[in-house]
Amino acid sequence: MALALPHPLKQLSIEETNLARDVTLTLHKGAVIEFREIFLNEPPKAELIKYLDLEHSGQLTDNSPRPPRLAKVQYDVIGEGNKAPVFHESVIDLRKKDRISHETISSDYQAALTIHEFMTFVEVCQKSELYQSKIAELKLPEGFEVVIEPWPYGGMDATEERRRFFQGLLFGKDTRNGNPDSNFYAFPLPLIPIMDWADKKIVKVLELATGGKGDSLTARTEKPNVLDHCKGSEYVPELLPEGTRQDLKALHVVQPDGPSFTVSDDNLIEWQNWRMRLSFNTREGAVLHDVTYQGRNVMHRLSMSEMTVPYADPREPYHRKQAFDFGDGGAGNCANNLTLGCDCLGVIKYFDGIITGPDGTGEVAKNVVCLHEQDNGIGWKHTNWRTGRAVVTRRRELVFQFIITLANYEYAFYYILDQAGAINIQVRATGIVSVVNIDEGKKSDYGKIVSPGALAQNHQHIFCVRMDPAIDGHKNTVVQEESLPVPMNPKTNPHGNYYEVVQTPITKSGGIDADPSRHRIFKIQNRNKLNPISGTPVGYKIVPPATQLLLADPNCVQSKRAEFAKHHLWVTKHKDDEFYAGGRFTLQSTKEVEGLGDAAARGDNVEDDDIVVWSSFGLTHNPRVEDWPVMPVEILELHITPSDFFTKNPAIDVPSNKDLISKLANGCCEKRELPMRSSL
Amino acid sequence: MALALPHPLKQLSIEETNLARDVTLTLHKGAVIEFREIFLNEPPKAELIKYLDLEHSGQLTDNSPRPPRLAKVQYDVIGEGNKAPVFHESVIDLRKKDRISHETISSDYQAALTIHEFMTFVEVCQKSELYQSKIAELKLPEGFEVVIEPWPYGGMDATEERRRFFQGLLFGKDTRNGNPDSNFYAFPLPLIPIMDWADKKIVKVLELATGGKGDSLTARTEKPNVLDHCKGSEYVPELLPEGTRQDLKALHVVQPDGPSFTVSDDNLIEWQNWRMRLSFNTREGAVLHDVTYQGRNVMHRLSMSEMTVPYADPREPYHRKQAFDFGDGGAGNCANNLTLGCDCLGVIKYFDGIITGPDGTGEVAKNVVCLHEQDNGIGWKHTNWRTGRAVVTRRRELVFQFIITLANYEYAFYYILDQAGAINIQVRATGIVSVVNIDEGKKSDYGKIVSPGALAQNHQHIFCVRMDPAIDGHKNTVVQEESLPVPMNPKTNPHGNYYEVVQTPITKSGGIDADPSRHRIFKIQNRNKLNPISGTPVGYKIVPPATQLLLADPNCVQSKRAEFAKHHLWVTKHKDDEFYAGGRFTLQSTKEVEGLGDAAARGDNVEDDDIVVWSSFGLTHNPRVEDWPVMPVEILELHITPSDFFTKNPAIDVPSNKDLISKLANGCCEKRELPMRSSL
Repeated sequence: MALALPHPLKQLSIEETNLARDVTLTLHKGAVIEFREIFLNEPPKAELIKYLDLEHSGQLTDNSPRPPRLAKVQYDVIGEGNKAPVFHESVIDLRKKDRISHETISSDYQAALTIHEFMTFVEVCQKSELYQSKIAELKLPEGFEVVIEPWPYGGMDATEERRRFFQGLLFGKDTRNGNPDSNFYAFPLPLIPIMDWADKKIVKVLELATGGKGDSLTARTEKPNVLDHCKGSEYVPELLPEGTRQDLKALHVVQPDGPSFTVSDDNLIEWQNWRMRLSFNTREGAVLHDVTYQGRNVMHRLSMSEMTVPYADPREPYHRKQAFDFGDGGAGNCANNLTLGCDCLGVIKYFDGIITGPDGTGEVAKNVVCLHEQDNGIGWKHTNWRTGRAVVTRRRELVFQFIITLANYEYAFYYILDQAGAINIQVRATGIVSVVNIDEGKKSDYGKIVSPGALAQNHQHIFCVRMDPAIDGHKNTVVQEESLPVPMNPKTNPHGNYYEVVQTPITKSGGIDADPSRHRIFKIQNRNKLNPISGTPVGYKIVPPATQLLLADPNCVQSKRAEFAKHHLWVTKHKDDEFYAGGRFTLQSTKEVEGLGDAAARGDNVEDDDIVVWSSFGLTHNPRVEDWPVMPVEILELHITPSDFFTKNPAIDVPSNKDLISKLANGCCEKRELPMRSSL
Repeated sequence: MALALPHPLKQLSIEETNLARDVTLTLHKGAVIEFREIFLNEPPKAELIKYLDLEHSGQLTDNSPRPPRLAKVQYDVIGEGNKAPVFHESVIDLRKKDRISHETISSDYQAALTIHEFMTFVEVCQKSELYQSKIAELKLPEGFEVVIEPWPYGGMDATEERRRFFQGLLFGKDTRNGNPDSNFYAFPLPLIPIMDWADKKIVKVLELATGGKGDSLTARTEKPNVLDHCKGSEYVPELLPEGTRQDLKALHVVQPDGPSFTVSDDNLIEWQNWRMRLSFNTREGAVLHDVTYQGRNVMHRLSMSEMTVPYADPREPYHRKQAFDFGDGGAGNCANNLTLGCDCLGVIKYFDGIITGPDGTGEVAKNVVCLHEQDNGIGWKHTNWRTGRAVVTRRRELVFQFIITLANYEYAFYYILDQAGAINIQVRATGIVSVVNIDEGKKSDYGKIVSPGALAQNHQHIFCVRMDPAIDGHKNTVVQEESLPVPMNPKTNPHGNYYEVVQTPITKSGGIDADPSRHRIFKIQNRNKLNPISGTPVGYKIVPPATQLLLADPNCVQSKRAEFAKHHLWVTKHKDDEFYAGGRFTLQSTKEVEGLGDAAARGDNVEDDDIVVWSSFGLTHNPRVEDWPVMPVEILELHITPSDFFTKNPAIDVPSNKDLISKLANGCCEKRELPMRSSL
């Protein structure tokens, strides 16, 4: 079989995925295999860098050494009878068509879940007598049916037996309007069925508390008609009682000459002095690699690493509502197929992903990443007040977008590059907040009533961005910089206006907290290269968003599973395959397993070394009524900004041309009926 | 004279300005008057509210009571001989054509400066022997001339004699390229002339320190050729040595049906359920009034109140580099005349301002505010993963923009309203950082070398937004809300995942600091009105940006002048005419005069009362090389977001129509020359 030689940073093709499948099957002759994921096992960094250096310098030839082309294969070997399936991870060398590493994963850990398992869970519920008997005890309004929303089981107590479970949140769905997209979340049912995966059996149906302020943690209504006080809240336009608003006029983004970016070799993007590779995998979604500006290394790899969403309702079993959306389900697996003219405007380039079916066959996931340009207002401006001459440039941005849906909730992720050398990571949280049933007329300390009978529970969203920097090379240092007051004194601060800028290099791996009161920022520097203008090391700076960290008690399972959510900025020494802040296995974890906390605890040298920088930030989300039924985006941003990397503003050569298409609104927007006037 | 009866919230017309001038002149027969500002003295709030209530309810008639139409007139009565001019403030009733209040301002306070005074300062320098002799001691490169950049004098020591001064920063300008916009800031000269305004005399020319790290606070080069190590850094496109980049393709915003907003009665804007009045004055620039959503009061008045820019270089006289851009010079006076297709895209409505000439005559300032719509990505989205149905809306925003130039620096201010009921205040800092001369080859603890010989000094920018809320009426309360950890305990937190939300109403006027570690937010509530869904008071929330506060020593003049910059969030009881956070008079102030600190110190009741909320936030700006020669925008935002004000997401009825103009980039952006491939 002859395959074109792909760039080492391309995702696996369907052919490569299938080859990895075939090699794996050959090694397990006679066994029943269920595949979970097959994706690119990125090359060892040392070998990759050699290749990229040759590529950058134009010295790549047919005979240049290439890193191995590797596939990571995650699969279950299905046991006989009652025996739980065993989870395996292999690495297959696609050129050698051979396995180069293999690990049988301890039953202490769980593989990420698949949509396939969710489907099975729904089927098992429906066949379960226990489940059906519990449903039968309820009295649903006429025309309602039950919807089962599968969820990861959440963190387990350290003492619980390690079995693979699923839990389901239940809702009533009003079928009378005949619309399959009628919003069932408005009708939460106070039951949670739990399935044991190995047995495919509903082992429990939990009865949920429905009380309010002043009630006990287990207070629960005993009445069967639990939905009678709930009320429909639709969001699909054809079900809105008032229809959609009619006074919003069209706004188009038109790029008559096409976009300013080019795409070649499938995943190589060039735009406004930037050059980078895009890859996509089932766990992290879109990843940027080998990001350079004017040929200078800036970032070796940039990814969304993990996020956790712990819920704060103390009533059992809500402590197990804690999603790790990347590790539990796979952000790539949950990525939306994006649509032209909806998810972005202008001239759009879409990228497909390759995902894996249960039989190990590669499948195309269409349009999981989109790439486009956007105008973001003024880029820089100066008016010479003497001459009246204004020079103003627009801020054009290049945007990579992917959006994931996890049951009720949506996250949109953006890598945004600008013309002034900055990279901005944006997260938009939207979708439907998670609600549970609450008795009529009650309020709660655990959340907000967003719709009658529907309590939206307080929760946090904490994200972690992984940055593998390469500031003019791979030996970098993070330097903490603070701006601190200095008491007035005759020698250094005679007039009291001075403040000092204190720099402290981070020497050992670890986590540090943001402190905006000290203007604490972090510079990733290459201390072996000085800026010729300033004489200071070339670098990029990060102002970690000083958002609230994890609130859960440090001794509880929710907290132990998410060490990464306990500091804002982490520096670790690079180690191959160490990509996942929340650990390698997050599903049902009792603590971080090979996660950021472990990496930081090694106490490695991180001075003038190959380092990785991680930024954790988030949102304490105590819902408001306006978050219902679909919440307006909440926007979070992380800025990675050049700081003495360039010898001047790199956007100074952006043209300040006038846009000749813009129009005056005079006339077209004047209202005719003027309020009354009379003479003085 | 018959004037149309203007709405009470319209800025003064030219006719009204001239009428105020004439009434004032009549009252000072025989005196020489120099006018500074004439602008609308907004009506007493009690009377204004009555009028607005009638207007809202459609009950306004010709016979309805109207608040008086008042002009504030600020002017100098010029003394004879050596006597300093005396500053007066009057309020003229335009209907009665009479003065209703008059105040002679103590010489302890200074009126805001005018461009006119700047011009005079430059002339006085040029005629000054002292100034000319100091310049003659320098040896400028061939073809260079001196540019004088007038600055406010800054804070005075409490013991200094109160006279009106101006200081000038000096630069060399390379005239050899013949371009009037050649960037002279790259050539800072180490001299500062100081003028006494009353005498029109240069009283001193200060010689500036030019040393670096390790040098004394007065270290100064004695060589005459102080610019020889400096280097040109141009930003106007025709002077860029490399020209402008050629690979940026056009991106147009096209609104074929016009904008979605309407403008009537000159300043009444309606858009997407919002309705508001716009006014403009010389001090605050654009101000929003009487902001309602679906006819419900949200915000009575919203303005940028003040900002201060203290510099941190401890060397004399840099402690006096501290601008109050609103109080010292007037943001309205310094507002740019905006240009179609440059400062914003799409279909634009411009508003003119009325400013005052030295003879008191009203003049039109063209296009000082622009109004347009913008697309800001996804507004809300949910995908039903069962059916695959995605509903996604775009986030359309209405943007009021004004941009001010203060010597080297630019600020762009935005009031941004969205469809989900939120108001966002955005500030973009751009322009040219302030630099001073530094000896060749030296570095400094006081800033960054951004161009050879040019030290950009460390400084802060601290802004203050004034919000006069009207959450369903004028009796409002600010409630602080924090999300706090709760130790694991069997009774309230058995699993450790619970956190508590603690609300504390603010009862007495004062200032409070942000604390993101506690997720401290503030809700402006009307506690007499409950949300029918949640049962909680209707409100809007503010998350004050937790940026660093003023760093200057609390005992120094820089600090005493800017009390408003010492807390993030302030609540005061409303008082007519109390608009200015940094005080009524900021120029040369030694402390805040009738400023936010004073208002807060009254200890007024602010519970269920007519309150004003102030948010101070900013930027500690230790310049980077990339800020030169014109800095890329730094963006700050304050969000004012509904919180249980509505009964659902008010943007839920935004249409999710597909934009049919968007195009696939496939083909149009592919690069032709693909990297080499070969077979496996």
